[in-house]
Amino acid sequence: AIFNQVVNFFSKPTSAPSENTPLQGQHWMITAGPTMEAIDPVRFISNHSSGKMGYALANAAAKLGAKVTLISGPVPLEAPKNITTVKILSALDMLAACRQISHENQVDVFIGAAAVADFRIQDIATQKMKKQSNTDEMQLNLIKNPDIIATVVAESMAKFVVGFAAETQNVIAYAQDKLAKKGLDLIVANDVSRKDIGFNQDQNEVTVVGKNTTWSPEKADKTELASLLVQFIRQQNQ
Amino acid sequence: AIFNQVVNFFSKPTSAPSENTPLQGQHWMITAGPTMEAIDPVRFISNHSSGKMGYALANAAAKLGAKVTLISGPVPLEAPKNITTVKILSALDMLAACRQISHENQVDVFIGAAAVADFRIQDIATQKMKKQSNTDEMQLNLIKNPDIIATVVAESMAKFVVGFAAETQNVIAYAQDKLAKKGLDLIVANDVSRKDIGFNQDQNEVTVVGKNTTWSPEKADKTELASLLVQFIRQQNQ
Repeated sequence: AIFNQVVNFFSKPTSAPSENTPLQGQHWMITAGPTMEAIDPVRFISNHSSGKMGYALANAAAKLGAKVTLISGPVPLEAPKNITTVKILSALDMLAACRQISHENQVDVFIGAAAVADFRIQDIATQKMKKQSNTDEMQLNLIKNPDIIATVVAESMAKFVVGFAAETQNVIAYAQDKLAKKGLDLIVANDVSRKDIGFNQDQNEVTVVGKNTTWSPEKADKTELASLLVQFIRQQNQ
Repeated sequence: AIFNQVVNFFSKPTSAPSENTPLQGQHWMITAGPTMEAIDPVRFISNHSSGKMGYALANAAAKLGAKVTLISGPVPLEAPKNITTVKILSALDMLAACRQISHENQVDVFIGAAAVADFRIQDIATQKMKKQSNTDEMQLNLIKNPDIIATVVAESMAKFVVGFAAETQNVIAYAQDKLAKKGLDLIVANDVSRKDIGFNQDQNEVTVVGKNTTWSPEKADKTELASLLVQFIRQQNQ
């Protein structure tokens, strides 16, 4: 409910989109950053993700007039102005936020830029686990998290769905496979084994794969790349 | 070698400590932040730790004239000016840095304020592990990390050793136990189950436990508390 009010606050009255704000009237939902899966009150499993790409995409879409809802894992970035930002920790929380937001406001474009943990801990300890001096090894039992972007497609939470694929090998092949399996409209693939781009870097170089498209913009600042990606998504979504 | 040069750069010529810089001539080595234990190139295990307390202690000691070496896990804090900051990721890297620094420069006071991961992954995958659609569960085999602060004591890396104990229950009892078992001079204990203090908060409330001392300063900003703690450590270390 509080959500709804915040989202509505930023809704603009319906009017014809102008040249500078071609996304006016559209609602984009974008996930960003890592998720954090608790092991106990002090330990967790997470993924490398600065959140920079997702935040840049949110800013780029808002700049073109879209109403943007950003669902963000824990990152040390400031919430962008004029964008409704929902902060979450775990993958389950992120999925719940996606469901609530899409339920309350029809979503035109979903971009899953978050690095969601594939697995969470089966039984989260409520107290800090103590080191046992007699055991030098420990097993952690993990259980698969729901696949957020596949669920967004399956439950028709958005009209157009864009995923990300961070891979260390066979980047394009894995991306094409993901696109088909999850029923995405586009997937943005990058090679995270390269140290000069991606995680925690300000620059990124990606290949965008669609059913009948492959597009490789030049290596660029994440801000610049985000702007190019948003325009490409808009073209594909017309 | 590069280390040594940086450290020596900040060494001051030997002279009598003044009233404002009573720690002049002393070298303090302080650890801060979490460690990050890789699962594969994109995933890791870590601990909640903003690094604020360790950075505040480093600043407080430097302000009183100490030469400070800060060994920091990944945190979004700026390296303090006039302090040699060594950035590391894993517990093994942190221990190696402690050994090298103490080898190159005699350490008067060591403060272990870092939240070191107790366990690391037994076999780090060199490629991103792929989700297997036929398995909903996964086991992660962990192996115990070396106990950094106990190793600092055992290898006489510092003359006076101060630990931290973040607990969720029986806080003082666990702290006293840790103090004795690891042979520490002082331990700073706090209750991390409280939401108003500790992790990611600017305030903290602690109890300092020594062999024959227990001291509970009032809840305070981490900067203020760090200054009180450094002065208390100095008294105990005279």
